[in-house]
Amino acid sequence: MKAELLAVGSELLGSLRAETNTLWLTERLLEAGVEVTTRTTVADDAALLESALRGAFSRADLVIATGGLGPTEDDLTREAAAAGLGRGLHRDPEVLDALKARFARYLRQMAPVNEKQADVIDGATVLPNPRGTAPGQRIEQDGRLLFLLPGPPGEMKPMFTEQVLPVVRERAGGAVLRTRVLRIAAMAESDVDQAVAPVYRTFTNPRTTILGAAGQVELHLTAEGRSGPEAEERIEALAAGIRQALPGRIFSEDGRELPEVVAGLLRERALTLALAESCTGGLLSARVTEVPGASAFLERSFVTYSSRAKIDELGVDAGLLERVGAVSEEVASAMAAGARRVSGTDVGVGITGIAGPDGGTPEKPVGLVYVALEGAAGTRVRRAVFPGGRERVRYQATQVALEMLRRGLIGLPPL
Amino acid sequence: MKAELLAVGSELLGSLRAETNTLWLTERLLEAGVEVTTRTTVADDAALLESALRGAFSRADLVIATGGLGPTEDDLTREAAAAGLGRGLHRDPEVLDALKARFARYLRQMAPVNEKQADVIDGATVLPNPRGTAPGQRIEQDGRLLFLLPGPPGEMKPMFTEQVLPVVRERAGGAVLRTRVLRIAAMAESDVDQAVAPVYRTFTNPRTTILGAAGQVELHLTAEGRSGPEAEERIEALAAGIRQALPGRIFSEDGRELPEVVAGLLRERALTLALAESCTGGLLSARVTEVPGASAFLERSFVTYSSRAKIDELGVDAGLLERVGAVSEEVASAMAAGARRVSGTDVGVGITGIAGPDGGTPEKPVGLVYVALEGAAGTRVRRAVFPGGRERVRYQATQVALEMLRRGLIGLPPL
Repeated sequence: MKAELLAVGSELLGSLRAETNTLWLTERLLEAGVEVTTRTTVADDAALLESALRGAFSRADLVIATGGLGPTEDDLTREAAAAGLGRGLHRDPEVLDALKARFARYLRQMAPVNEKQADVIDGATVLPNPRGTAPGQRIEQDGRLLFLLPGPPGEMKPMFTEQVLPVVRERAGGAVLRTRVLRIAAMAESDVDQAVAPVYRTFTNPRTTILGAAGQVELHLTAEGRSGPEAEERIEALAAGIRQALPGRIFSEDGRELPEVVAGLLRERALTLALAESCTGGLLSARVTEVPGASAFLERSFVTYSSRAKIDELGVDAGLLERVGAVSEEVASAMAAGARRVSGTDVGVGITGIAGPDGGTPEKPVGLVYVALEGAAGTRVRRAVFPGGRERVRYQATQVALEMLRRGLIGLPPL
Repeated sequence: MKAELLAVGSELLGSLRAETNTLWLTERLLEAGVEVTTRTTVADDAALLESALRGAFSRADLVIATGGLGPTEDDLTREAAAAGLGRGLHRDPEVLDALKARFARYLRQMAPVNEKQADVIDGATVLPNPRGTAPGQRIEQDGRLLFLLPGPPGEMKPMFTEQVLPVVRERAGGAVLRTRVLRIAAMAESDVDQAVAPVYRTFTNPRTTILGAAGQVELHLTAEGRSGPEAEERIEALAAGIRQALPGRIFSEDGRELPEVVAGLLRERALTLALAESCTGGLLSARVTEVPGASAFLERSFVTYSSRAKIDELGVDAGLLERVGAVSEEVASAMAAGARRVSGTDVGVGITGIAGPDGGTPEKPVGLVYVALEGAAGTRVRRAVFPGGRERVRYQATQVALEMLRRGLIGLPPL
């Protein structure tokens, strides 16, 4: 089964914005054993779009177009697909009612332009979109399938998973691919590779790809098998070897990111947490509270950006600040201890550093960060100097804090 | 002048490798006044490639294909382009001699498969490639231009700059494109479109594209002119009309995001800020401190996730919390006032709401958020019900808070 993907939108053709939907779809389709033979990004232009859709539909068994289903004049995918397939469009009263109901739910008046989002290609099946206003559409013609999906990834991805993938899987049959992602925090990509290359080099199936990002390294293992369980078994054989090569360092093999893993551990152990942040400015707290249900363990956080705030809110000693400076092991510890004491939680975290671009000195360069963790077992502090700009320094600092938390919670020695 | 770009190669269609040639070419072409209307990545498959090339050549004034010019069986761009244009291929003796000489220079024997790299489309101009074995080709037909370039960026880029760009510039007639992005926060895409469509519809140059994201709408204006200043002038003519249609709503025309704009206003006015967040969990503080130099105005932030923290840190009245609940106009105001009072700042912000996915009730649904702003001029509170999941609700809440701050700081009436 061969697929072509179309990403619709002039904004995707500038040099500013990367188009990510088709990459994500390629990965999902590969897992289902469907090969993507062409990916096209096309401008908001009716004639172009019609030609591109018609071409794709003439070549592939499956065509998925994302974007261009919104309410504005630029949103032309419905019209172009109808023209490309030689079909008409009609305004669907049920879809229109659902649209109106959605606007009413959010206490908003529906502008007349929105009505065009209820236009459905003759013979198409409507794919509900509970997360947005634009429904998707499925058209089958001459044994080929065309799906129109909205562009925003937050709407497109669940619609694909719930409403497209089951249909595609049924059609595709045959060989299956499985992927597992092993995640490691606060370790350099080259160090991870050094440790695991002797293991993964002995395997041709699964294949291993290493991806490095700020504060995190991912090992993507992809195996092919005649069945899901067979592919899974192949992956597990390699994963077991990698685990031995990186003892205690893999924080996730199930898609979860570090904040979710830490949140799970805190909940399991019924422990509470308070955070004190300086250079990260609330980023650690924001990441922890991205996890639904964070109120079960996060009692409060302090962003003590000024020295005054560190003294007032966390009881950091003014003399200490004067003596060793805000960016120091001692102040990080005092912040963690203060957050824990003031909030009455089981665990406290303190972060202080120099995120840049200004404020660095030869002794305390930009990127220098101290992270402290205080709990019943005592205090741990880690010093790091992170490369990269302000954003990367801040993000890496939160990764170290989360990894220290994770290790502390499961009784591993400090980083 | 419109261009289509084709990247040829099955390896570019996996999910792991990003295709970068077309992005680079898009940027270079835009600078030369050539708009890229379609970008396609296509597998090493003769029929697909021929269809894609023929389609592109039927639509665009300029087609550039990169890749598929190597010596292996997978390298099919020459054959596909010849077939797509209805032309023959011949083995060019001069190119063959140059190939042989190149191999001799590196003391290597030329394998017979390499001879196919000397195949030239009838009527094509050969483009020498001093950095590799595969020469490029230029074909002109019916006033349209097709360039075949090798895939390795180290070969493609200098060939484009030296041998393609001068031809393209001459054809494009010195036309240049300029783009400006107008940003609007806390307003629905359809409402923005309703307000500005009557303005932008009267212009064909610039063109306008509307992009909606969580909590923000962007209007991308792209104008063509014979010179940079002329294109700028055209953009300004439309931008002036849009400003009138959306008085006070455009927060940026210079690429800055909302936190940077608010940070700039606070610094200009030498005002200090304190934040109190509940459902956003530190996200507003993290966004504000992304801006370098935020310590000039941000004194401190509180993430008062529990009721206890709201009482302890911000002095919110326990009876009030009991009576109206944590998610209420009154508590949002008390949080803003508390943050300001405790920190001794000029301005305080309070956010409380239900980010979901749990915790909603019929009276207080998931997505309900109150944002309060307190300053010398008094208190403003805004109630909103945001669609989308936890992440989008939280982000939109921070956008509303920032937009309220921005309006308050420049003396506009509340949202």
